[in-house]
Amino acid sequence: MQSAGAAPGAIDLNQMNPLSSPLLTDLYQLTMLQAYFEREMTETAVFELFVRKLPPGRDFLVAAGLEQALAFLEQMRFGDEELDWVERSGLFRPAFAARLAQLRFTGDIHAMPEGTVFFPDEPVLRVVAPLPEAQLIETRVLNLVHFETVIASKAARLRRVAPGKGLIDFGLRRAHAGEAGLLAARAAYLAGFDGSATALAAPLFGIPVFGTMAHSFVQAHDSEAEAFAHFAAAFPENAVLLIDTYDTAEGARRAVGAAKKLKGVRLDSGDLDALSRQVRKILDEAGHKEAIIFASGNLDEARVAALVAAGAPIDSFGIGTGLTTSADAPYLDAVYKLEEYAGKPRRKRSTGKATWPGRKQVYRHYAGDGRFRRDVVSVEGDAQSGEPLLRPAMQHGRRLPQPSLAASRQHCLAQLERVPEGAYPVEISAALRALAEQVDRTT
Amino acid sequence: MQSAGAAPGAIDLNQMNPLSSPLLTDLYQLTMLQAYFEREMTETAVFELFVRKLPPGRDFLVAAGLEQALAFLEQMRFGDEELDWVERSGLFRPAFAARLAQLRFTGDIHAMPEGTVFFPDEPVLRVVAPLPEAQLIETRVLNLVHFETVIASKAARLRRVAPGKGLIDFGLRRAHAGEAGLLAARAAYLAGFDGSATALAAPLFGIPVFGTMAHSFVQAHDSEAEAFAHFAAAFPENAVLLIDTYDTAEGARRAVGAAKKLKGVRLDSGDLDALSRQVRKILDEAGHKEAIIFASGNLDEARVAALVAAGAPIDSFGIGTGLTTSADAPYLDAVYKLEEYAGKPRRKRSTGKATWPGRKQVYRHYAGDGRFRRDVVSVEGDAQSGEPLLRPAMQHGRRLPQPSLAASRQHCLAQLERVPEGAYPVEISAALRALAEQVDRTT
Repeated sequence: MQSAGAAPGAIDLNQMNPLSSPLLTDLYQLTMLQAYFEREMTETAVFELFVRKLPPGRDFLVAAGLEQALAFLEQMRFGDEELDWVERSGLFRPAFAARLAQLRFTGDIHAMPEGTVFFPDEPVLRVVAPLPEAQLIETRVLNLVHFETVIASKAARLRRVAPGKGLIDFGLRRAHAGEAGLLAARAAYLAGFDGSATALAAPLFGIPVFGTMAHSFVQAHDSEAEAFAHFAAAFPENAVLLIDTYDTAEGARRAVGAAKKLKGVRLDSGDLDALSRQVRKILDEAGHKEAIIFASGNLDEARVAALVAAGAPIDSFGIGTGLTTSADAPYLDAVYKLEEYAGKPRRKRSTGKATWPGRKQVYRHYAGDGRFRRDVVSVEGDAQSGEPLLRPAMQHGRRLPQPSLAASRQHCLAQLERVPEGAYPVEISAALRALAEQVDRTT
Repeated sequence: MQSAGAAPGAIDLNQMNPLSSPLLTDLYQLTMLQAYFEREMTETAVFELFVRKLPPGRDFLVAAGLEQALAFLEQMRFGDEELDWVERSGLFRPAFAARLAQLRFTGDIHAMPEGTVFFPDEPVLRVVAPLPEAQLIETRVLNLVHFETVIASKAARLRRVAPGKGLIDFGLRRAHAGEAGLLAARAAYLAGFDGSATALAAPLFGIPVFGTMAHSFVQAHDSEAEAFAHFAAAFPENAVLLIDTYDTAEGARRAVGAAKKLKGVRLDSGDLDALSRQVRKILDEAGHKEAIIFASGNLDEARVAALVAAGAPIDSFGIGTGLTTSADAPYLDAVYKLEEYAGKPRRKRSTGKATWPGRKQVYRHYAGDGRFRRDVVSVEGDAQSGEPLLRPAMQHGRRLPQPSLAASRQHCLAQLERVPEGAYPVEISAALRALAEQVDRTT
């Protein structure tokens, strides 16, 4: 086993952006690279990223994270600090750091456009590059595409159960650290959310951001009425008042007294169905028929669906932890596997983890009403009918023009209309089965 | 509701470090700040961070993330790009950006030292600062402390079921984006792991990093034997060979043939108990008695405990997704609540979410054998016996000297020896109950 420590703080998290470092990878990628370089194993490799199976209770997935993966690849290089560490680590031979200093990602990428609905065994991203480059990037490409796909797939379920309702990401505080919070805001918006509470998501991604008030604002004042009057004065056009700090019905009555023009109220605890009806009545009777009711507090797609089905008069939902940690399915069985090297198809046969070899394409067939009917996974260039889902995304290490986030969101919303109910058929073509048999005979 | 969009790309993720931005917060913190500034509500506020309840199946938690929270607070300021966005957002009054430009965190922090075992209702971190400062930092402080506490608490469970075994974090690829992967490496090490596969964790945190090889390395060669010979030549002193790509027993026989000095082998699929015994026999019979067996593949504390109990001859475990997403409990019910403002204790009474008011301290009592016996939560300054767990960590916005990560790890390992079995008693003191009643009478 290769192992190395280092003086702590040799790289300072506040001085560099660790998210763009090529050392944001598994150490074994570097040890394998040293071995590849020593034998000049730099011929073309093909890796594909796919999900092996669906989490319990899920029917489909939504591809996301391509833009972040491409941005990472385009700028990836070893800086002086990183090369210093490689040299000082004691793990590598002297010539290795010099090779790393020259390393850039020069490969081609095909991928499903962000927002595309996909299924297990279907490659969502294919990398064709010299072996060391394609190997090194495995960890970070998976890390980005896996996470955004987890969140987009979760967000799509919320979008589908709440047609016409506002859906806002409220989950930064319990997201798994900062980058997850930011990318969750993006992936949720991609999958049809209306925006996020995360302020930085606006300048970073152009996502609409929303904010109401916290319980601490009410508590910091000597009375709830005073807090409401104060907030309404600060935001005379668009105050949403949080009314459950002490007693929700009383809070609603204080809210209508506090603001001439009340944008809305937020409920964050208790029986949201019963409370929303009670509060709607108080708002209407006070003449605030336009004021919206916003609900939050441990919501997920099951609770939202139940509230929608019950006809609770809630206009918008804030979804926090359940969204940004995808609490019921916090990971996918996503992998990045070698399928071809130096022109030869390759296959892994480990128990329960066997792969389909070769460069593949996914062909989608549609029913007469536009819904997806079935997908066929085959080798690239097989004379399949159906729509090929993998499209060129990067050529020679340069990004090809990609749709805007807004366009990808429209694509995703259209996709969500076309997902059929129940188990979805994904077929492995005869040509792909024949190739797998051929590979098994020769290794 | 306050809402704002912005042209995408106004801030470029590759040009700045979004992880240190004060806009990495909920928008409502900023809207509340504008209101606070307008009425000069800048008196001292006390907020406390605590966990409301344990996830199912858990008995205790491990405090982590303090160092990252303190580092964030010490450097936090609004830069030109961030102030530009605040001005252009259309949400705020003209004077607001100028106030933000001056804002620094100038407060005091008390916290449980990292690695301390704690329980629900116990404050792990207390902020005493002017209200706007203490409010703004809520989101990022929770985001950091919550996540590292989730991972340290999970890692501690693995450490306890595998005494004497190596434990390595393998989970970057399916962690929730990059910062989570890095902080998971740190939090797992803090809670007794031996290291991480994440290369950047070495220069960033001084954590030992480990690497073996991937299936793709084996597959890229024309035969497994050739791959092993090649890797052993590149790392003659410390090659760990991955032997399950095609057939594990055959892989083991090829491994002993490939290297004069074999550091070890890794199993990543199949029946790890049976395979490890079979492989141990092959290694021993070939004279590689010192070679270690490393196991990985969908492991969590239940599977590791079963393998240890069965006496499987596995020396080290690589724990991936189960660790870095804390798959069985991907979040904690962690909150940050206002407990006092302008000298008055404050309390929230929302259904199911009521809080204990005032500045609190946690007093721990020990049994004769050194194990924890019970904790008492009381108001600060109450004449309680027991060891006070909250210690000064930051004064006037400057970090006080903190233990090194290695020292915190030793503290945690010692703590883990002292956790009693079963439900742990946390008492609310008479003084704290009296204070809550007093607050209820006056609001």
